[in-house]
This record gives sequence, C-alpha cells and structure tokens, in this order.
Amino acid sequence: MKILAIDTSNRPLSVAVLDDSTVLAAITVTVHQKHAEYLLPEIERLMGMAGLKPADLDRIVVAAGPGSYTGIRIAVTTAKTLATTLNIDLVAVSSLATLAANVPVEGALVAPLFDARNQNVFAGLYRIKDGQPTVVIADAHTNIAAFLEAVKEYAEPVWFLGDADHFTELINTTVSAATPRISPWLNLPQVATIGLLGQQMTPVKDVDRFVPNYLRLTQAEAEWRAKNPKEDVESYVEKI
Amino acid sequence: MKILAIDTSNRPLSVAVLDDSTVLAAITVTVHQKHAEYLLPEIERLMGMAGLKPADLDRIVVAAGPGSYTGIRIAVTTAKTLATTLNIDLVAVSSLATLAANVPVEGALVAPLFDARNQNVFAGLYRIKDGQPTVVIADAHTNIAAFLEAVKEYAEPVWFLGDADHFTELINTTVSAATPRISPWLNLPQVATIGLLGQQMTPVKDVDRFVPNYLRLTQAEAEWRAKNPKEDVESYVEKI
Repeated sequence: MKILAIDTSNRPLSVAVLDDSTVLAAITVTVHQKHAEYLLPEIERLMGMAGLKPADLDRIVVAAGPGSYTGIRIAVTTAKTLATTLNIDLVAVSSLATLAANVPVEGALVAPLFDARNQNVFAGLYRIKDGQPTVVIADAHTNIAAFLEAVKEYAEPVWFLGDADHFTELINTTVSAATPRISPWLNLPQVATIGLLGQQMTPVKDVDRFVPNYLRLTQAEAEWRAKNPKEDVESYVEKI
Repeated sequence: MKILAIDTSNRPLSVAVLDDSTVLAAITVTVHQKHAEYLLPEIERLMGMAGLKPADLDRIVVAAGPGSYTGIRIAVTTAKTLATTLNIDLVAVSSLATLAANVPVEGALVAPLFDARNQNVFAGLYRIKDGQPTVVIADAHTNIAAFLEAVKEYAEPVWFLGDADHFTELINTTVSAATPRISPWLNLPQVATIGLLGQQMTPVKDVDRFVPNYLRLTQAEAEWRAKNPKEDVESYVEKI
C-alpha cells in the first residue's frame, strides 16, 4: 500500500511517503510556518524522490488536529482534495496520538500535549497496546492543571511529550518527579509514524464532509456565539 | 550551536540541521542509493530552508560507519571537506550508536545491527544511560550467531534494531522470545539523533587524518593481503 502522509497541524511541516511499513522518504521542517507555501512543492518533491506518481497512491493520511487552525486547514484541505481527485482513501489521525506513538514501550501511559497558551493545552492520555496508542483520556482543549489532576488519578509513571517542557515544574509537582525523559527529536510528531498508524485505521466514510478536530471554537465563532447566545444552531456557518 | 548532521553509511540518505537540541529541518530518503548525487543538493536545500549559510555552522556531525564502504566514504569525505573549509569541528558518531539512541528507555540494553550478508552483521551492544547509548560490546563485523551468544550472556531483555527482522527466528531461539518490538520508523537511523548525540561529543582532533570505521577490509585489501601474507605493513595503501 502506497501512502502519502502529511502534517502541518502544528509548527512542523512534515511529509512522508511510505510503501506499507517502509518509509521511502520523509521530511520535517520546523523553522518556518509557511505551510501553505511549502506543502505542495514538498509533496511533489518527495513523491518524485520515491519514484511515485499521484496515480500510484492508495491512501492519504493526514494529522487532523488538534493544533493551529490555519495549519490544520492547510493539511486537511490538501488531503481531502488529493483523496477526492485520485479517488482513494483518506485517513485522519489525531495529531496527539501521533506523538504518543513515538513511545515504543508496551503498556506505557503517554500524555502528549501542545501548548495552547494561557495555561491551556491540547492534550490526551494514551496507553501503548500492541505498539499502538489507545485512548485513555480523549483529546481535549483544557487547562493544564486540570489535565494533570486527571492524569494523576492513574498513579503510575507517565511519558509527557510535545510541549511538556513548557510545564516542567507543574508536571513534576503534580504527577511525579520520576517521569521518563525522551529525546527532543521524539517530542516532534514524526510524519512517518502518522503514515504507519494510518495504514491500519479505518478510512473516512464521506471525504467531502470530513472536518478537522479543532477541539475549540475559532475566535470568530466564539465572538459570534457570545453575541448570539439564543441561536440554537449546529454551526455558526450558514448552510446554503 | 548550529549543527549539520549527515548519514549515508547505509541505505538511507539523511541530512539534518539543528540549533542546539532544536531540529530545524531533517530529511530521510531510503528509496535509492544515489548518495553521491543527492547529498550535496540536499544539504544546500535544507540549509536554505533553515535560513542558514555555511558560515553559520559551528559543527559537522557524521555517521562514520559501520555500513557500506561507498556510503561511508561519501558522507565522511563530504563532512571532512566542509569541516576543513569552514574551519569548524568535526564529530564522528557510530552508525550503530545512532540506531541505539532511538530507544528512549533508561537502562535498556540495545543491540543495533546491520545485515552484512552471509550470516554476518555489523553489530554492537549498548546500554542507555542518562538518555545516551554507552558501549557494552564494541561495534564489530561478526557472525550473527556468535554475536547473539555474546548478547545472551547478559540474560536480560534486549531491544534489537536495524536489520533485526532478517534474523527474527535466530534471535528468538537464541536470546529470548520476549524482546520488545519497535516501530519500523525507529529501525532507521534518525539523522536528527546523530546531530543530538554529536553535539555532546568530543570533536575529531586531526580532521585531515580522520578515517571512517569500516570494521572490515575492502575486498581489494583482503585479496592483496591473501597474496602478500608476509608483508608486515600497517596498511596496504602505499604511503607517499
């Protein structure tokens, strides 16, 4: 199975091309956030390096959030367009589950988190089972202290990944001083891992209607809802 | 510290640019072996993406073998040339130690190996201490059965990495059926890890005289030695 995996849901832009579990080519760039400008050229270049044409692809796997609104939209829109145009499967992977998959320790409890500012995080808690991250606490946009209190309930060592170093003191005082350390490289989502995870997952049923997992309202929507508290609608976007 | 890390010692071609422990950009291509053709353009492209000029670099880190003769020579020659030209430090990292560093488990015993054909391997045994691989059995070109017997002496679970899947049955019957599994992605050397390891290591003293760690004779040298058994020389290459 030939897979194109893309992730621009946070600071890194990552693209990988896989053939089953073999990573043919993978790139990660963390230095800029010109995701819209770089994503398509990088896809084209890596596909070329891997000797693949678009028609060779069997599946698109995308990190569908949580993370940056704009970043998520760039990756998901690109992935949906490619899947629809090529008439192939689209698979969406949690950006947090991808991070959790970097811990190759069976049975480990892993807490990937992204700093969402003002002491808030996007975070989830996962258990590694048969090499795959399985959900223990679902991904959420939450206050870091509240998340750590929930994690503490499990009373066992937890691998904190991602932006955990932004909250080192709070983590150490709340959960345990003895949480395992991990290489800085494994604190970044590895897009090859996204491809590997997505290979085994069920594809999205309706590609056109697939929406990313933002996990919080956009500022525009939050403001609209504040001004229109009585509106009982599923979405503030008018359906036409 | 701005670091350029390169590895073409085995099938993957990998280049990474780091700023201290931050990976700015990293690429890995496993699909071809045109290392000589691709290495310099990839270095130039990644440096550009990271917004760095050659004069910004503080250190070159190279995976210096074991592995493919030609691959090792390409990376080491490129690294020596850059270090000399830019007058900066050169650091050599074992290609096997780099693989071992993919296991982020404190205290773990890790056996990275590359298939060297005819039931031979390049292999070493490492213990992860303070997040770094430390040598337990030095890298060697050896028979796989002999290596596994030596590893067995430690009577504890061992993480086998790299081409371990070429010897699954032998590993399971000799050492233990319960060795931990690892993601296929972590079976590849991660050049970002090479950069991170090399950041803390002592640079090569004499860059011009630095030679890679081939760990076995080239076919030409082996044939020459067979024909000239009485020659008592350090190297079959004539010093001029």
